[in-house]
Amino acid sequence: MKDPTAREPAADRLAALVFAKGPTCLGFDPRPEWAPPELRPKSSSIEHAAEAAVAYFDEVLEAASFAAAAVKIQAAFFERWLAPGFAAFVRCCRRARELGMFVVADVKRGDIGTTSEAYAEAYLSPVDGESPLADAVTVSPYLGSDGLNPFFAAARRHDGLVFTLVKTSNPSSKELQDLVVAGTTIAERVAAAVEAEAERTRAHFGYGSSGAVVGATHREELAHFRAAMPHAWLLLPGYGAQGAGPQDVVDAFDRRGLGALVAASRSLTYPWAGAGAPDAWRAALKTAARKMADELAALKPSAST
Amino acid sequence: MKDPTAREPAADRLAALVFAKGPTCLGFDPRPEWAPPELRPKSSSIEHAAEAAVAYFDEVLEAASFAAAAVKIQAAFFERWLAPGFAAFVRCCRRARELGMFVVADVKRGDIGTTSEAYAEAYLSPVDGESPLADAVTVSPYLGSDGLNPFFAAARRHDGLVFTLVKTSNPSSKELQDLVVAGTTIAERVAAAVEAEAERTRAHFGYGSSGAVVGATHREELAHFRAAMPHAWLLLPGYGAQGAGPQDVVDAFDRRGLGALVAASRSLTYPWAGAGAPDAWRAALKTAARKMADELAALKPSAST
Repeated sequence: MKDPTAREPAADRLAALVFAKGPTCLGFDPRPEWAPPELRPKSSSIEHAAEAAVAYFDEVLEAASFAAAAVKIQAAFFERWLAPGFAAFVRCCRRARELGMFVVADVKRGDIGTTSEAYAEAYLSPVDGESPLADAVTVSPYLGSDGLNPFFAAARRHDGLVFTLVKTSNPSSKELQDLVVAGTTIAERVAAAVEAEAERTRAHFGYGSSGAVVGATHREELAHFRAAMPHAWLLLPGYGAQGAGPQDVVDAFDRRGLGALVAASRSLTYPWAGAGAPDAWRAALKTAARKMADELAALKPSAST
Repeated sequence: MKDPTAREPAADRLAALVFAKGPTCLGFDPRPEWAPPELRPKSSSIEHAAEAAVAYFDEVLEAASFAAAAVKIQAAFFERWLAPGFAAFVRCCRRARELGMFVVADVKRGDIGTTSEAYAEAYLSPVDGESPLADAVTVSPYLGSDGLNPFFAAARRHDGLVFTLVKTSNPSSKELQDLVVAGTTIAERVAAAVEAEAERTRAHFGYGSSGAVVGATHREELAHFRAAMPHAWLLLPGYGAQGAGPQDVVDAFDRRGLGALVAASRSLTYPWAGAGAPDAWRAALKTAARKMADELAALKPSAST
């Protein structure tokens, strides 16, 4: 059954948003201790931490959503507050969807069979009469296609998108992802599965309902994976605080400026980080978002060569 | 900081429970539609589904915990009910801990750095003044040691246990886990990391705070991984409804009958499955648990050779 609230494939919804606002993806990993004083939790309880995270997320959206096509909401930082945290995660996803943003539930789930189906149901299906929690979900491929296929099926059915972990930017990603078997790395094998599903489901703008997480910290590597998955939206974490800059991501885009979402978390949502929020923190949020959007917009000519 | 509520390493707590009740692990993947009629949800709302799952879990514990050292609670089947579902997952974990069972939060999480730390905090650390939600957590190794180490560290600090996915029982597990690099499969490489941490943290009974998920459906393979990880508790799903029987798991145990938890979900918690619960469903739960415990207890002589 099609989700009656979805009007078009996620890959096309995302393309329209990237045309309108650029490829910035606001990453939200709530850190109440870095919030402006007036938005810090009222106590050390998990209820107050969760409540404060939602309130601050509203502020971030109000200040910065003008310059971002998408948000990536990190489940881990909510789950550490258990039930109130997960409820806050759900609320943050719903707020961002209501504002028309493309919502990536960064949950990195992965299991097999009916268990993967249950996870896909949680994040990509209409639940309890409401529209799906997210437009896209991140998944982990260690269990093989039995683990990925239920997510792919849910994305097809409900016009969602699945970002599979392909090549991550952390140093130890090489331990497993870079191992070479018969001339092909593990990451390349996962990329082939991602591309097969992307090609099969490609929509108006040429991208399908299967995408990939690729680290933004190595330019050559990114170009390589871009070429290996021409129909896949890429989600690139690692921009800003994690070290990648505009030149590292330039090859991820097609000539129209489509094909990749560039995610930054700390540098957009707590641009002051450990230093403490300035009084003009709303302005700082706006400035950080505008700066990143401008950096990425400036890439377009280079990408069109 | 040590968790003041924990008294001994998880590996030793588990050993004591397995001595007392055998290696059965009750797997709970709530399926309200299979519950006895009087315990079905009052409506199709996610609140009622979640509430019914907790009520049924209480019944399962009351009927079957006499014959099981541990429970494995599957987060996916709760997350599909979003916030009420996650709250129910937390309640189920707490109920089983209160009864003194060894609780495995089957969440298969995995990310990097502070994000893995946040997940580890959720499941293995004292949160909000309460004891940790679970004794053990399942994790996925695609991101390499950057992803695993934060879980290992939390397990050491709070006397928990981490079950890393090594070799799963699903058909497509071969796509990635069985690939051979320089004479070693991917699964064997993950096993080496699991064993290194297990050896480093081994406690009184010789097992450490790092364990492995290994599918129970191939006897030779299980024997191989048992030998590769002599200090690791193994979590073996796939018993019962998924096809493995007593002879498939016999090599997982040491001469004392320690070293493995054998998990069964459907055959223990909904032994009637699609057929509909009999009137005497409590008796059916007891019988199913006793039968599995007896099957596994009968293995001891063979395992001691």
